[in-house]
Amino acid sequence: MSKKVAVIGGGSWGTALAQVLHNNNYQVQIYDLSQEKVDEINQDHINSYLPDVKLPEQLKATTDLKEAVNGAEAVVVVVPSHAVRKAAKDLAEVLETDTLVVSATKGLEENTYLRMSEVLAQELPAEFEDKITVLSGPSHAEEVIKNHPTTVVAANEDKKMAQQVQDMFMNDQLRVYTNPDAVGVELGAAVKNIIAIGAGIASGLGYGDNALAALVTRGITEIKRLGVELGAKSMTFAGLTGLGDLIVTCTSQHSRNRRLGYKIGAGKSLEEALDEMKMVAEGVKTAKAVYEVAEKHGIDMPISNQVYNILFNDKDPRQSVNDLMMRGKKHEIEEVAKEQSW
Amino acid sequence: MSKKVAVIGGGSWGTALAQVLHNNNYQVQIYDLSQEKVDEINQDHINSYLPDVKLPEQLKATTDLKEAVNGAEAVVVVVPSHAVRKAAKDLAEVLETDTLVVSATKGLEENTYLRMSEVLAQELPAEFEDKITVLSGPSHAEEVIKNHPTTVVAANEDKKMAQQVQDMFMNDQLRVYTNPDAVGVELGAAVKNIIAIGAGIASGLGYGDNALAALVTRGITEIKRLGVELGAKSMTFAGLTGLGDLIVTCTSQHSRNRRLGYKIGAGKSLEEALDEMKMVAEGVKTAKAVYEVAEKHGIDMPISNQVYNILFNDKDPRQSVNDLMMRGKKHEIEEVAKEQSW
Repeated sequence: MSKKVAVIGGGSWGTALAQVLHNNNYQVQIYDLSQEKVDEINQDHINSYLPDVKLPEQLKATTDLKEAVNGAEAVVVVVPSHAVRKAAKDLAEVLETDTLVVSATKGLEENTYLRMSEVLAQELPAEFEDKITVLSGPSHAEEVIKNHPTTVVAANEDKKMAQQVQDMFMNDQLRVYTNPDAVGVELGAAVKNIIAIGAGIASGLGYGDNALAALVTRGITEIKRLGVELGAKSMTFAGLTGLGDLIVTCTSQHSRNRRLGYKIGAGKSLEEALDEMKMVAEGVKTAKAVYEVAEKHGIDMPISNQVYNILFNDKDPRQSVNDLMMRGKKHEIEEVAKEQSW
Repeated sequence: MSKKVAVIGGGSWGTALAQVLHNNNYQVQIYDLSQEKVDEINQDHINSYLPDVKLPEQLKATTDLKEAVNGAEAVVVVVPSHAVRKAAKDLAEVLETDTLVVSATKGLEENTYLRMSEVLAQELPAEFEDKITVLSGPSHAEEVIKNHPTTVVAANEDKKMAQQVQDMFMNDQLRVYTNPDAVGVELGAAVKNIIAIGAGIASGLGYGDNALAALVTRGITEIKRLGVELGAKSMTFAGLTGLGDLIVTCTSQHSRNRRLGYKIGAGKSLEEALDEMKMVAEGVKTAKAVYEVAEKHGIDMPISNQVYNILFNDKDPRQSVNDLMMRGKKHEIEEVAKEQSW
């Protein structure tokens, strides 16, 4: 009898992860609030978020959380960021001792600015605190479901936990690396969306590859600066969940944050751009959160700062580019200059 | 009377840099072997490598190297990599004492595998050794000539020299950072072309953003491993000339190396792909050089190794992807795992 895993949230990423686990010989049950979504998966073996893909018939879904987690070796929480606290409260009622918790949602909670693993830790019983492993990386669900090669990171300070999650998901299409630095992994995945808005703005202004390269490279530098201040390891931002995810988000036409930025660079206001998109771009909220955190800690984040001012203070994007280009003359890498006693 | 700079090489990048210097109030003279190219610049104020751009009338060209360098405060060497040694030999005959030398050519010399600044240092009189500053970064000439925002790095162990070059080129469209680590700056710019071939192969196989993110992120990790072994600073590879240039080369449709890889991923042999391109893709030579250097020093470079085997040993690209995905389970960041005593 194969082991069981519960996937909490039947969105596109939850469904892609459920298929990976099915391919790895787990019995998988998806929990979703929507009876319609559950019927789709159980009866038609599809998920309309991922059209054209036939799901395995053994993949089952339910609206009954207790049934989903019953006997599961692990639960994978992959609901939208605004729904994680509610999901965690509900899980706290039904979760069995010794169940592993995988947090696969990206983002910071609104108002509290907490990382998703922190939200889970607050709501779940204390015994689960060390069992929360973050799973993150540059991974469009649309590609994972088609078994295209993808790399992600399982992050937990507890090596054994990280390795258990690595074993659970790894196969010849999905390569899983371990990293003890969950803080860095989660911050990279959240803050990247601000830089993606910036990349969209540059593109909307008509700028090309040179500007994009500058934004991504200098962008990861300032994300790292923030992360280190908040307890992350510097090197994590050079990895898949920092740099890797940033590259995808800044170059992919599918990125909502990039598309929002493009509209603004092309002359629209934030309100007009958001109206046209008819969906939330996570980076707008993150820009506000990061602006406040950076102010509070005195962290120099020139690109995020300009994105904030364009979004919330009607700053002219061309003026922002100019201000970024004409800052004081700098050494490229602070650490290298210091090492050289420059 | 404004100061003079000589630009050695009237290609697209040389011409773009010449225009930057002209905008910064230098008197600029371009040296080129080709009388046709020189006439184009002097008489028609265009360079056919950069169609649709009118050059400043004050920008002069000559086939007379001695005339070009006469009275120049600096010479900018920007000929193709295979021509740098010859240019350096010729410059050795005419260069005036105290002239700064800027090396703006990317690549390694064939057979010797020397960096361009090393080739220059070998051929120029010893007094110039400390005066060679490397200028590099993610910078399509086509965008710089249109004054699109661009960032580059001036690298020289001697801080004063690096800053002089920074001052020379910096303006509100071109932001110049300084870095003491010329070795890292030059290696990043050369070795990136191997990973770009790999990115093209993945795209030719039909893979998407997830695979690209993995290649770039894991690619810069192995470039860094090589660089540190050869005396570079680890952090330089996270900068504009490492990561930044790698991103542009791996995502731009203009990259020759990426296009070559695409053809091979789609099923062509190296010979067929090269035939169709009718031009050299620098990364093919670099793949061979790096394979040999990595073997000699015992450096683990899994992606470069697979690209080498696809190019030179007819390895099936799908098998290479499979071999990359199924290597042993790893920690993501060696340094972070070690710090954590994992």
